Amino acid sequence: MSKNPQNTPTPLAPPTFVLVRPQMGENIGAAARAMLNFGVDRMRLVAPRDGWPNPAAKAMASGAGRVLDGAQVYDTLADALGDCDYVFATTARHRGLTKPIYSPEAAMEVAAEKTAQGLKVGVMFGPEAAGLENDDIARANATITVPVNPEFPSLNLAQCVLLTGYEWRRQTTRVEPLAHEMVKTDWAPHIEVERLADHFEQRLDTAGFFFPQAKAQSMKTNLRNMWSRMALTRADVQTLHGMLRQLVWSKDTSDR
Amino acid sequence: MSKNPQNTPTPLAPPTFVLVRPQMGENIGAAARAMLNFGVDRMRLVAPRDGWPNPAAKAMASGAGRVLDGAQVYDTLADALGDCDYVFATTARHRGLTKPIYSPEAAMEVAAEKTAQGLKVGVMFGPEAAGLENDDIARANATITVPVNPEFPSLNLAQCVLLTGYEWRRQTTRVEPLAHEMVKTDWAPHIEVERLADHFEQRLDTAGFFFPQAKAQSMKTNLRNMWSRMALTRADVQTLHGMLRQLVWSKDTSDR
Repeated sequence: MSKNPQNTPTPLAPPTFVLVRPQMGENIGAAARAMLNFGVDRMRLVAPRDGWPNPAAKAMASGAGRVLDGAQVYDTLADALGDCDYVFATTARHRGLTKPIYSPEAAMEVAAEKTAQGLKVGVMFGPEAAGLENDDIARANATITVPVNPEFPSLNLAQCVLLTGYEWRRQTTRVEPLAHEMVKTDWAPHIEVERLADHFEQRLDTAGFFFPQAKAQSMKTNLRNMWSRMALTRADVQTLHGMLRQLVWSKDTSDR
Repeated sequence: MSKNPQNTPTPLAPPTFVLVRPQMGENIGAAARAMLNFGVDRMRLVAPRDGWPNPAAKAMASGAGRVLDGAQVYDTLADALGDCDYVFATTARHRGLTKPIYSPEAAMEVAAEKTAQGLKVGVMFGPEAAGLENDDIARANATITVPVNPEFPSLNLAQCVLLTGYEWRRQTTRVEPLAHEMVKTDWAPHIEVERLADHFEQRLDTAGFFFPQAKAQSMKTNLRNMWSRMALTRADVQTLHGMLRQLVWSKDTSDR
């Protein structure tokens, strides 16, 4: 039970909510309102269908217009997640991906811990109709699934955002500042893991690893899942880059 | 943290959600969807503005139409709460009423306990614009306030219903059946407390208690707050009726 049903401001910076390929402007505006209800004011948009800015979003957001004004827009999900250290993907159904599945409650508890450790947390929300693609989820460290009634799972985008924001606020009104538990580990930000994945993908492509062609995409998705699942430090990433370069180099020379 | 982010069906009957004087049919339909998302399927309507059935509600509810089909409609709040043993009122701001204020989490924890004890729980939701009147809240045993961002509290009806239903499901997927803790106390159902309040109100009116006229309504509201705040058994109610009758009788005789 929450120790404090009142609204104590949280000292923790809220996570960044990333709307991936959102469609209706109204839903973007409704998401902004849902976020601000719980003090989550950092929004990022990946390839919004109807472009940006969007008058319909602005009209729906009304009081929450400042969330839209501050929203950052990106062409690709990879760019949008660039500076995030830990990323959640919200998903309705279990995709059988080999990464943790959290309830909103558990996820925001983790998010609060990560944030208290100085890490930047992002939460991805998919397009209204289809939700996130497996290739989007492949870029997440963990997934969030709302425990809805299996006979009637009909949460819309703004509702999913609302419940996640609610849990963020609920968790952070309890969490003590964890300064004394500050983790010194220098985790690799998402962009570095992304570059590592790209490096391996390119080299493996050249090496004819992704065969047959029909399976290439799913093989690449699985690979990205593997990288994002690992808790990699910056040093790990450099080591892996070095390993890859060395493997290719030795192959080239042995071919001579 | 929830032991079980998956959807385990709950053995507890969900509370009845009572929409008081709802206005737009679309919002009634959206509330039905929000309810069913978390397995809450008992809806009651008090004096819906546009009458009942409402095509706009039906259209919006789509998959949750059965919640509307099963909805019971009442002219007065007192009738709608008639068979409820414990009633919550959702309210945005603190009304300074002398009854418990719970977070949705704490409230649904209490609701789960009461339900496990065989009591019928109701939750009131006010009209879209104004919310519940003090006189509505006076009929509740406790209030629920969502801990929103005080700088942007903009929850709509369906969102308030959604968060309450979410907490019901979250609490009840953890609660063990409390059969062994079954409380044998014969609590007075709401209708009996209502009649007791009416009885006192009539007699006190006749006695000129509610004076000056300008303050009469708030005095009556405070009185109903007092009754609903008490955890009254059926025996208590009968005793109070008897006390009142006796007081009036002795007064009448002494006047002779």
